Formats: sequence, C-alpha cells, structure tokens
Amino acid sequence: MESLQDFKEFLNFGYLNYRRNLTIECAIFGYDVGNLQVLLTKSKIITKWCLPAGYVRKKEDLDEAASRITYERTGIDDIFLKQFKTFGNPGRGHSPGAFNKEIFFELTGITLDENNWLMGETLSVGFYAIIDITVAKPKVDFLSSECKWFPMDELPELGYDHNEILQEALSVIKMHLYHFPIGKKLLPEKFTLKEIKLLYEVLSGKTLHITNFPNKLISIGLLVKTDEKRKIGAHRSPTYYKFDDKIYNKVLQEGLVLV
Amino acid sequence: MESLQDFKEFLNFGYLNYRRNLTIECAIFGYDVGNLQVLLTKSKIITKWCLPAGYVRKKEDLDEAASRITYERTGIDDIFLKQFKTFGNPGRGHSPGAFNKEIFFELTGITLDENNWLMGETLSVGFYAIIDITVAKPKVDFLSSECKWFPMDELPELGYDHNEILQEALSVIKMHLYHFPIGKKLLPEKFTLKEIKLLYEVLSGKTLHITNFPNKLISIGLLVKTDEKRKIGAHRSPTYYKFDDKIYNKVLQEGLVLV
Repeated sequence: MESLQDFKEFLNFGYLNYRRNLTIECAIFGYDVGNLQVLLTKSKIITKWCLPAGYVRKKEDLDEAASRITYERTGIDDIFLKQFKTFGNPGRGHSPGAFNKEIFFELTGITLDENNWLMGETLSVGFYAIIDITVAKPKVDFLSSECKWFPMDELPELGYDHNEILQEALSVIKMHLYHFPIGKKLLPEKFTLKEIKLLYEVLSGKTLHITNFPNKLISIGLLVKTDEKRKIGAHRSPTYYKFDDKIYNKVLQEGLVLV
Repeated sequence: MESLQDFKEFLNFGYLNYRRNLTIECAIFGYDVGNLQVLLTKSKIITKWCLPAGYVRKKEDLDEAASRITYERTGIDDIFLKQFKTFGNPGRGHSPGAFNKEIFFELTGITLDENNWLMGETLSVGFYAIIDITVAKPKVDFLSSECKWFPMDELPELGYDHNEILQEALSVIKMHLYHFPIGKKLLPEKFTLKEIKLLYEVLSGKTLHITNFPNKLISIGLLVKTDEKRKIGAHRSPTYYKFDDKIYNKVLQEGLVLV
C-alpha cells in the first residue's frame, strides 16, 4: 500500500481479495559480521514501532504471503522464511476497532465503519527470516513513517503484542539452529570456521564449543574445506570452507539433529 | 456437541460464541511402554478418520481452546499441549462448503445455507499432546461415529490435510525432545533408565545412545536417582530414577538444549 488511494481501496474492497482477520507478522533479522538487528516499521496509526506485517490474499498459501510481505519490506526475494507460532488471544488489539479514531481520521479522512471487514479479533501467523543486512533495502509504505534496523540491545517499545512475538521468534531460532541449516546466505561464499562460529554464537546468544559448531556441520558434510586459505599473517592462514549444496538442500528439506 | 440439537444451535447461533474460520486440530499421542498411538475420530460427515478438532470460543486463548478440545476427547485435564504449526492454505476443504450435501442433509435434516457463518476458508492451529494412554477415555460426539487409538504403523487414510498435520506434529516432537522435558506424565513416578530411554526412542523413531538420553537428563539434574532398585534377578537390579520437580518446571518454562 503506497498511497491513501491504495489504502481506501483496501478498506472498502479488500474483503474481495484478502482473508478476514488474518495477518502474517514477520520477525526479519539482519546479520552482518557478528551483529544482529531486527527490522521494524513505525506505524502512523498506533505511532509505535512494529514488526512488518500484512494481510493474506485469498489465493495465497501462508508461506507465499510471508514471502510477499518480506519482499515488500526488504526488496529481497527467495528468503528462508520459517513459520514459528500463531498468536490469536483475545484482546491483542490487532483490529482497527482498537485504533485511535482521531489519529485514523487525521491520516485518512475516513471515519471507520464498525461493520468494516477489518473489524474483529485478528489472528497473526508469525514467520521469521534471517537475511544479509547489507543487501536489504528497507521500505516504508503509506501506513508507516519509518522502516529501519534496530540492534537487538537497543529495541524501542513495540506496539500490540509484538514484543512477545519477537521474543518467541528468538527462542525458536535458538532451537532451530540445531535442526536446520542456517547461514548459507548470511556469509560470503567462502568463509573461515571462525566466521561461521561467530554467526552461530550471535544467533544462539552464547559462547559455543567448537566441537558442536562448526565441527558438527563438517562431520555431517554440510561444510566442506576448499583449497584456499585466508592470508592474515605469517603464522595465521585459516582455511576457507563453503556449504555443500547437495547436503544443504537435503537438510533444508529433512531437518537434522546436531547432537 | 453431543446431540443434533447442540449441532443445530451451533450452526445457527455459533457465530455469537465462536470465532469464524478458525479451528484447533489436535495430534494427541498416547504412550504405553514402548508403544505410541494416535487418537482419531471418524467423521460422520466426511466419513473419514480425522484428528480431533474444534472451533475457538471468542473469549478463549488458543491454548485454552486446545486444552478444552483435548479434554472433551480424552477426559484428561492439565495436559502438556504445544502449538506446532498453523495450516491455512486455500483449498484445504475444512469448510462446510466442501461437504457432501446429501450426507449432511441425511445426518442433520438441514440444507446448509451458503451464507452460514461456518462457510469460507478455515485456518487450523495445530497442537500436539503426548499422554498416558492408560488413563485416557476416548469419547465420540454427535459428529463422530468412533473415537479410538491407532498404532502409528496402522494408520488409516485421513481426511482433509490431516495426514500432513500429523506428520508435521511428529517432526516437531522429534525436535522438541531435545528442548523440552517430556515424559513426566508418561512414566510411573519411579522408573529405570531403560524405561525412559525406551520412551525417547519411540518418540524419536531411532535408537539413541545412552550418553545422550537419558544420561544428559541426569547431568542437567532433571532426573535424580532414588534409593530404590527394581528386583529383576540375582545380578540385575536397576536403580529407580525420578524427575526433579524444580528442574522440571524450570526447563518446562525456559526450554533446554540437550547437546
């Protein structure tokens, strides 16, 4: 939604193309060399920072809707997106019925009809993504005044139940680290073991023992040695590794257990 | 729903108390000494075996709805239920619009109105539970002709997308084994290491090494030795273990990583 015109069309006729009371909320994390950030948008209506979100089209699978919404906010296609939890408790405030009517009128010139199709308790399916922060292009839309990255230790207060959703995404990622291959698109094509260990440490939030990561990844064939070494100094020239595409695609489909 | 009268009331006035187009589907597994089964109900309307399911009341949290639905089918309260995935792709057939109208009329005497509140694509939030099969009391309702346990290797064809939901539940359980304490209510109060290892093997579907399970559970303090031993024979008297309640409740809340 890029203009007031788009938004009015969505309010009046959105029920023809979108499912009622169902949104996708995306916890999009950006990684760059030891640093993890999360993408937030500042809502003009509730004037708080929120996770990027959107409604689901009638013809879309949930995964497709999550991909579209993430693409709209980051300009990145073909992201590893994972559904992690659905939030639907009463009173979450995700309905326009909970909006400040004055701010809404000021923004749109519309007095929201109590029978509008957007009214009522809304269910949100949460997806997470971890992307290379250097290639993302955060983008605002008509309903947001800003869209930008926040370091995980400098988070603002979030609107709705988005703090809960964000924390849940982080918990699930800490678990998924042991079961899904993560990192292929977050590291250069060739990388040192120190670089991938750092990635896993940032995502897990703790210091990891080298026998778990990345050595476990090597033992299952997911990481393979290349012939190249990085030249750091006379006595330090760590070997470059890369992902094995075949094993990567296999464990992406089937999962793995890194224990 | 126990009678035709209940069902008619639900069809005509259910929208007053229930959320539209939202169900909970429960993959309820029953365990008993090395044997895992799943609870299925035979739908009178689609005449196929299905996972137990139900609509969500407007005032309920999703977890509360899952507890209620599981209780209605098993008579067991206070079950460890875990949300694992939401299913909402178009064409899942979970709407009465996809029902066979003749069977529906034969069963209820009702010609379903195309504008009925139950119509339209329905989203299902999946929960799993693992319970002690010996204490469960499977129960039919007006819409089901049977409700019973099936061994995992003798599953019938399931209705809707319930085969996908069941397989997804099993995949997630295999992952959760490493991150949540499982088994407290599935074993006697005191048990041998062999008994708990068997439980983990049945749930994971593979032979486990004793240094992972159950020794890891002992090393984190979740399992503690008792003074008692089982008397099997002159040279075999394995020690009984039990769960440490404090650690159990802590890891139930916070999760753990068994690596």
